[in-house]
Amino acid sequence: MPDADIHPNATGRALKVVEAHQEPADLMFYAGWFCPFVQRVWIALEEKGIHYQYKEENPYHKDKEFLKVSPKGLVPALVHNDKPIHESLVILEYLEEAFPNTKPLLPQDPYTRSLVRLSIDHTSKSIIPTFFKLLQSQDASSQDSARSSLYEALQKWSDGMLDGGKGPWWAGEEMTLADVVLMPFIGRLYILEENRAFDLSRTNEKFSAWVKHALAHPSMEKTSSERNYYAQIYNRYLKNEAQSEAAKATRSGGVIP
Amino acid sequence: MPDADIHPNATGRALKVVEAHQEPADLMFYAGWFCPFVQRVWIALEEKGIHYQYKEENPYHKDKEFLKVSPKGLVPALVHNDKPIHESLVILEYLEEAFPNTKPLLPQDPYTRSLVRLSIDHTSKSIIPTFFKLLQSQDASSQDSARSSLYEALQKWSDGMLDGGKGPWWAGEEMTLADVVLMPFIGRLYILEENRAFDLSRTNEKFSAWVKHALAHPSMEKTSSERNYYAQIYNRYLKNEAQSEAAKATRSGGVIP
Ligand SMILES: N[C@@H](CCC(=O)N[C@@H](CS)C(=O)NCC(=O)O)C(=O)O
Ligand SMILES: N[C@@H](CCC(=O)N[C@@H](CS)C(=O)NCC(=O)O)C(=O)O
Repeated sequence: MPDADIHPNATGRALKVVEAHQEPADLMFYAGWFCPFVQRVWIALEEKGIHYQYKEENPYHKDKEFLKVSPKGLVPALVHNDKPIHESLVILEYLEEAFPNTKPLLPQDPYTRSLVRLSIDHTSKSIIPTFFKLLQSQDASSQDSARSSLYEALQKWSDGMLDGGKGPWWAGEEMTLADVVLMPFIGRLYILEENRAFDLSRTNEKFSAWVKHALAHPSMEKTSSERNYYAQIYNRYLKNEAQSEAAKATRSGGVIP
Repeated sequence: MPDADIHPNATGRALKVVEAHQEPADLMFYAGWFCPFVQRVWIALEEKGIHYQYKEENPYHKDKEFLKVSPKGLVPALVHNDKPIHESLVILEYLEEAFPNTKPLLPQDPYTRSLVRLSIDHTSKSIIPTFFKLLQSQDASSQDSARSSLYEALQKWSDGMLDGGKGPWWAGEEMTLADVVLMPFIGRLYILEENRAFDLSRTNEKFSAWVKHALAHPSMEKTSSERNYYAQIYNRYLKNEAQSEAAKATRSGGVIP
């Protein structure tokens, strides 16, 4: 499977962080350096200052040992105190609850929490599927329609920003999971800019200010590898040849797992 | 729009509950008697003994006032202390946090909570899309394939049951959101049995024992209307003519909103 043939490890800034997290710890982080869903969890671990051991896992190999941890064979996954967890959103909620004395990524107030969760729901149902669709679309007319849908979905996201969108984060002064779940995809937006005529200047000011802030944020930079290593992977998406579960679902009109 | 032409209110057991919840309350529940996503929230409100006012809303009319509460024009929605919330899963988490002194529907322990959330994720990504697909599929071969996928998704759901699946609930002794999010669809499984050759006896014993328990549970019975009133709605799905957002997404291979 050609998808399995990825660069074996993180590079650049991210490699340094990987190297600094090789000691055994109560929390083992099964990661793929290239994966946006992994990067969500990675950002949260860094923000919260949780002690973790980083384990690079190639999810396309579906190793038997890994399937015990993550039954769908997807990264990210954790083993914390010998117990396995998978699914990035489930992991993010878990980290909030299992490490209550670290920097919170959900607001205190139940109502504001519900608004953050609504934003996450929008990212999952509208932004990410459209992102993959634009990436994989081959003909001009489906690219145009996916690009419009993506502008629209990002517009809605920024319309939802709290505190009148003053920023710098989605909810205002403090970073929350609303930011964390979208940031890794924003780090990959340049692929759409270079290959799919996506134009950040066609989004609104609130959104482009947030993008700028998010891309320069330390935990984002620290968990990002060098751009040319991502190219190998995303070229397969751009040709609609990728065989990941997400790529296959996007192609067949199924649910991204 | 023919979908808008639904029976205007709950019937049977559910009508009694509606009538008992007409007094003004801090929590206004925008509901549609026929809607499985509404029924999730309704079950939770009843289980938790929260004081609420029930408002029947026909979401196909997209009334301007309602769109202020629920911008996608979908039920369920709440207004609690003058603040609007929508999306059944977001509402369910909100109720846990905003009413901490009522019966909890999430376990205390963070790890067990994450398992419940993983089960909910499976219900959202696998069970519900397959449920709609089987309902709307017209030819025998796509019905066969949707039916197999549904058996498989339900099998996985019951494989995940905690406490070795001793029941009576998904997580064991106590009802949790893992049960609540699936129960309304189980209450509509008879439609697939009568029209799509779905055979409950082809699922496993753990699952069919759970179904029996869930269907007879008071908050489930109390929030269910008479079967013949559901038929009008589901007949449009069975002919693949329904124009709800969920029906359109199922038809076009999009994401169920
Ligand atoms: N819904 C999952 C998605 C994770 C996911 O798709 N991970 C990809 C890498 S980015 C993967 O493991 N792919 C392996 C495969 O598709 O076989 C999450 O949020 O954690
Ligand atoms: N994801 C939503 C789905 C809600 C939903 O689809 N509700 C339906 C009724 S069952 C609705 O309001 N439909 C109106 C429409 O599709 O236009 C939730 O979980 O609350």
